Amino acid sequence: MEIEIGRNRKAYWTFGLDEISLIPSEETVDVDEVDVSFQLGEYTFPLPVLASAMDGAVDVRICSILGKLGGLAVLNLEGVQTRYENPEEAIEKIITAPKEKVIDVIKEVYREPIKEELIEKRIKQIKAEGVIAAASVTPANAERFFPICLKAGLDIFVLQSTLTTVRHKSSKYKLDIPNFCEKSPIPIIIGNCVTYEGALELMEAGASAVLVGVGPGAACTTRQVLGIGVPQVTAIADASAARDDYFRRTGRYVPVIADGGMRRGSDIAKAIACGADAVMIGSPIASAEEAPGKGYHWGMASFHPLLPRGTRIYVGILGTLKEILLGEAKRDDGTMNLIGALKLSMSSCGAQNIKEMQKVRIAYAPAIPTEGKALQR
Amino acid sequence: MEIEIGRNRKAYWTFGLDEISLIPSEETVDVDEVDVSFQLGEYTFPLPVLASAMDGAVDVRICSILGKLGGLAVLNLEGVQTRYENPEEAIEKIITAPKEKVIDVIKEVYREPIKEELIEKRIKQIKAEGVIAAASVTPANAERFFPICLKAGLDIFVLQSTLTTVRHKSSKYKLDIPNFCEKSPIPIIIGNCVTYEGALELMEAGASAVLVGVGPGAACTTRQVLGIGVPQVTAIADASAARDDYFRRTGRYVPVIADGGMRRGSDIAKAIACGADAVMIGSPIASAEEAPGKGYHWGMASFHPLLPRGTRIYVGILGTLKEILLGEAKRDDGTMNLIGALKLSMSSCGAQNIKEMQKVRIAYAPAIPTEGKALQR
Amino acid sequence: MEIEIGRNRKAYWTFGLDEISLIPSEETVDVDEVDVSFQLGEYTFPLPVLASAMDGAVDVRICSILGKLGGLAVLNLEGVQTRYENPEEAIEKIITAPKEKVIDVIKEVYREPIKEELIEKRIKQIKAEGVIAAASVTPANAERFFPICLKAGLDIFVLQSTLTTVRHKSSKYKLDIPNFCEKSPIPIIIGNCVTYEGALELMEAGASAVLVGVGPGAACTTRQVLGIGVPQVTAIADASAARDDYFRRTGRYVPVIADGGMRRGSDIAKAIACGADAVMIGSPIASAEEAPGKGYHWGMASFHPLLPRGTRIYVGILGTLKEILLGEAKRDDGTMNLIGALKLSMSSCGAQNIKEMQKVRIAYAPAIPTEGKALQR
Amino acid sequence: MEIEIGRNRKAYWTFGLDEISLIPSEETVDVDEVDVSFQLGEYTFPLPVLASAMDGAVDVRICSILGKLGGLAVLNLEGVQTRYENPEEAIEKIITAPKEKVIDVIKEVYREPIKEELIEKRIKQIKAEGVIAAASVTPANAERFFPICLKAGLDIFVLQSTLTTVRHKSSKYKLDIPNFCEKSPIPIIIGNCVTYEGALELMEAGASAVLVGVGPGAACTTRQVLGIGVPQVTAIADASAARDDYFRRTGRYVPVIADGGMRRGSDIAKAIACGADAVMIGSPIASAEEAPGKGYHWGMASFHPLLPRGTRIYVGILGTLKEILLGEAKRDDGTMNLIGALKLSMSSCGAQNIKEMQKVRIAYAPAIPTEGKALQR
Repeated sequence: MEIEIGRNRKAYWTFGLDEISLIPSEETVDVDEVDVSFQLGEYTFPLPVLASAMDGAVDVRICSILGKLGGLAVLNLEGVQTRYENPEEAIEKIITAPKEKVIDVIKEVYREPIKEELIEKRIKQIKAEGVIAAASVTPANAERFFPICLKAGLDIFVLQSTLTTVRHKSSKYKLDIPNFCEKSPIPIIIGNCVTYEGALELMEAGASAVLVGVGPGAACTTRQVLGIGVPQVTAIADASAARDDYFRRTGRYVPVIADGGMRRGSDIAKAIACGADAVMIGSPIASAEEAPGKGYHWGMASFHPLLPRGTRIYVGILGTLKEILLGEAKRDDGTMNLIGALKLSMSSCGAQNIKEMQKVRIAYAPAIPTEGKALQR
Repeated sequence: MEIEIGRNRKAYWTFGLDEISLIPSEETVDVDEVDVSFQLGEYTFPLPVLASAMDGAVDVRICSILGKLGGLAVLNLEGVQTRYENPEEAIEKIITAPKEKVIDVIKEVYREPIKEELIEKRIKQIKAEGVIAAASVTPANAERFFPICLKAGLDIFVLQSTLTTVRHKSSKYKLDIPNFCEKSPIPIIIGNCVTYEGALELMEAGASAVLVGVGPGAACTTRQVLGIGVPQVTAIADASAARDDYFRRTGRYVPVIADGGMRRGSDIAKAIACGADAVMIGSPIASAEEAPGKGYHWGMASFHPLLPRGTRIYVGILGTLKEILLGEAKRDDGTMNLIGALKLSMSSCGAQNIKEMQKVRIAYAPAIPTEGKALQR
Repeated sequence: MEIEIGRNRKAYWTFGLDEISLIPSEETVDVDEVDVSFQLGEYTFPLPVLASAMDGAVDVRICSILGKLGGLAVLNLEGVQTRYENPEEAIEKIITAPKEKVIDVIKEVYREPIKEELIEKRIKQIKAEGVIAAASVTPANAERFFPICLKAGLDIFVLQSTLTTVRHKSSKYKLDIPNFCEKSPIPIIIGNCVTYEGALELMEAGASAVLVGVGPGAACTTRQVLGIGVPQVTAIADASAARDDYFRRTGRYVPVIADGGMRRGSDIAKAIACGADAVMIGSPIASAEEAPGKGYHWGMASFHPLLPRGTRIYVGILGTLKEILLGEAKRDDGTMNLIGALKLSMSSCGAQNIKEMQKVRIAYAPAIPTEGKALQR
Repeated sequence: MEIEIGRNRKAYWTFGLDEISLIPSEETVDVDEVDVSFQLGEYTFPLPVLASAMDGAVDVRICSILGKLGGLAVLNLEGVQTRYENPEEAIEKIITAPKEKVIDVIKEVYREPIKEELIEKRIKQIKAEGVIAAASVTPANAERFFPICLKAGLDIFVLQSTLTTVRHKSSKYKLDIPNFCEKSPIPIIIGNCVTYEGALELMEAGASAVLVGVGPGAACTTRQVLGIGVPQVTAIADASAARDDYFRRTGRYVPVIADGGMRRGSDIAKAIACGADAVMIGSPIASAEEAPGKGYHWGMASFHPLLPRGTRIYVGILGTLKEILLGEAKRDDGTMNLIGALKLSMSSCGAQNIKEMQKVRIAYAPAIPTEGKALQR
């Protein structure tokens, strides 16, 4: 929907998750008969949840736990896990640094080079846990690290940067994504993208799934620092339209994974209602007691040498990863039992599975009313 | 009104009570000549006010006081009143629990089973006060508890859950609502619902009145935790349209009772202007000095074992129930003399009764201007 | 402009002063050549400013000072000035009452009956100062006090209540406004009203000017307590349209006086740009060092016995009344030199007089951007 | 885009920088291959950044440093630099004044007359640094100071006031802008303006570039005190449309310089995306450690004798001017490495130069979502 913001200049009206609400259905479903499983190529995940490739959230242990719970954690192959034999020490430095020095400490920690033997080692460690192994690399390092990944037995490769496009104008080296995908014997998830065309081009390039989300919120440093981004409701709906059009044309279904800014079960329910097949979450994972960050979390752009975006933040420790995803919730703010909330939301919306949830009615409810605020006096 | 939130994806634009204001009329009515009475089947209530079936707000005493004032309090038959011979002790545990343990304490208190003899006893106690007796049960317990209620002399049965629909997909037991209503010798109020179709189906199923409101505000835990809900202005208007269409078709008038998020007289006036015949309120009742919660209030989803929604909150004690409903107001923020405010609002809008109030002009006034803020320096 | 807020239910989209901004012109006017005078019947006021009939803002002294500066203060004939021989004592009680008892103290002070001899005395005191005398009475007391006012030499009569309409349904006494106006030998300002039709009916009833504003802001108690009101931009524009239509039809020009929620010069400029001929202000007057309230201000509904709306608030003392209206400003927040700001605003908008200012271009600028916020670090 | 704000009254819907976001492209550009240079007449500036003619931000030293970095600082010829031989002392008085006396101190400091010999001296000092010299004068002083400027070797003249129009109704002296431009041997930048017509008339009058921005934000004193202004998105888009239309008609390209309210790299990126060719910034310059204000900043309307607008504010010292513009950023909030952020933003939007950046897709994203807020717990 376009809106005129000045003479001869239009803008595309976009929407964020906080501005919408899901409309309960007239036909409800028993909550125990709701199916939230997510299909990625030949893999079926009981939970539609991926853990972000962030160093405070994912290490081998989290890969193992989340894999056994039914989701998929993605290990960052360019973070502390592949720079340090003992990443715990590096993490300790980051989480104990005084607030005013933390950006410098983070930069320092990430100056240590990535070691190829550690890439191999970490992947093998994940495989040894008996779960599906997924790991992420940026386009610049993709061709160099990919053979190591394959050799180590990686199951799913994630090619990820803030914004990944098939067409990149540069006089330097650049990755040929269609060729890269074509040669790959394993599924490749690519991201992030944020428009219909961007998602479509990644699908046409051979992506097995796409990650959607760039600067999804005002609080997101990408929007604050760079001024770019599209709020998630519109970004997901547009990418989903690309997926549906591409599927209609080719018969190949490329799942859309919403990535970024989701913290509560309601956020996940809304993202799926907007069209997502699954979600990738960071903070909720980082707030698990098993997470490597011990309640701290930092973005992978935090150590950009010239333009750091995001810093270390304290998310707290809310409970075990199982409690956060499946309950029992010890809090009433929606940050625990994310899957329980998703199922109850689907039940209320009359959706028996993810496909049905993608079609439920949405309300545009922009006001943050004080209705009910009495309850918080 | 639809709005495009992404490619091929539309949302229904919804509105909350805080976003609207009522437009004064050119023909005013003397405030003493305004009639706010509400008709429910054969019963006429001088006040269009029901008290929510919540344990901090309603016990036998409140049923008696509100009944005598002209409203109707609904006793929760699945709360402390039917689990404990001496509910005061259970309530004392909840209201004295330290903040960080309150969810656990609430869960513990509600683990005690419901006792059928207490259902009978409570209803008889209400009847003994000489007022109309109303009590609520969830659909899962309706068939089991209903005969007891009838035997005890209940006048009005309230079938209530967060979202109650006629069509519920489940392989387990489910209540046949049309059949249940047909067999009932007493009026049945059913809720909650939040859409035109949802309200219409409950009316067609035989409801004597419907309760409207699911996650009416952003502060409401249902919207925060589950992501579902419709702001009250739109929900009430839609349910009222169903009522009017149903009445036109069948000649049976099924009142719409707005439930949730109303705290001030202005909220009640707005709810009626949107089409409601009456309102159901919780916090204002809980803030009466006679209320069982002694200034504390908690929702009936607070003790959900896996996904608690809402916790104990302190609403304070503002005055007697009579003062809260009929004044004299000791505060100037609209939380006291709710009926006085409703009448003065109706007087300004030129409405002599509830039916006329349902048709007054509404302003969409979304801004919270600082105009007049000087008055609060 | 209508907007659909639910099925079969529309609302009128209304706007507040904070949501708009005035668009500078391509043809500017020297600030010293701007004329802000305001014509009311045969009277020409150099300043388009009336002082509200509120006890913290207006007494005989303020009537004298404002009259000499070129505006018009309206004395409240139902406040402390006519209840007490020495109103200073009554005011002292109000301004020294502890916060938690102030509503009770105000109610107590206003229980003292109005004395007819004091009505006469106050008007004569104003006349003795050599300025135009204006005073306000509510419709209920109009016929009783009006002869006394005339006898004492009152120049302009203000018939004012929160909402005054020509058509009032009541089985009790009611004022016949058209008849009252017809018999009056002096101009009668009537208010408040807030719609096109409401303003038009008052004009047709014979008003010499109308006061526009009911619950102009969310902070306004009328909107908070009663839920009624129309934001000022729309209310003023609608009343101004009535004035223009009425003038076209009858040749009689009935000025529109915006009343309520204006605190800064920018608010006054915007109100006039929306169509007002003059403004009535309370808080800025109450913050003059000569004001009777000594920095305190309270509304005339504060002492409503059953439903008090508004309480005593501290507006502070900013400077002399002359400094507040004409500068020199000692503050940079727009609360001083209101007329200087109005003139500079008119100069930038290319308006040489009030009539031209009523036609300047308006921007709808709802966002409260953080642009420029750096300046406030 | 017009919106009806009342009967017979329309408003022009305007937008601020905080309400928009830039949509990433499907075709990205290597960040090192982005060209941000800005052409003004015969001059090419590597950086599209002008420093505001404000006394806390610009002195000779800043002119030298910014000039060598590739931008252009504008010296205020009516400020402390031309009133005092040793402006440091005057500045010291302002920055050490206690908060409650600062407006008086500022007024006092600016009571000292401007000295023509200092105008000449300052310009020569800038020239001696080997950089392009630019300085600003208000229209009232333009004819008097211009010959001195030319004699001293000024390269670019800035004719600036809050709002400068070609047509000014006054019985006093007024500057004939077209004639003034025609006679000038050097480029003349004129501002500020804020509408299509206003910008067009300045271009037709002979401006070499126009400054766009009047009251760009709610926090801006101009909007608060005077009620006038247009948010920057719409103002820039409209002025840019005038530039393009004027260029189409005449072949002369008159750059649009956005002035006001930009603090972060994202703001600059958005301003250019709305159509600006360059930006003029104050606060970021004032927060450089070399800036004369030592972390303090005040507007040139702060010392208006009757109606001061804006006061002294503390912006802090963030780093060297080079660090603020080109990094390395020591902060992650977007206030450092403004050009790095602009380049990365352009890279993501697929814009290789300013001209391409002016055409990127814009999202209207008004909500300030809490998405991602978890990251700030």
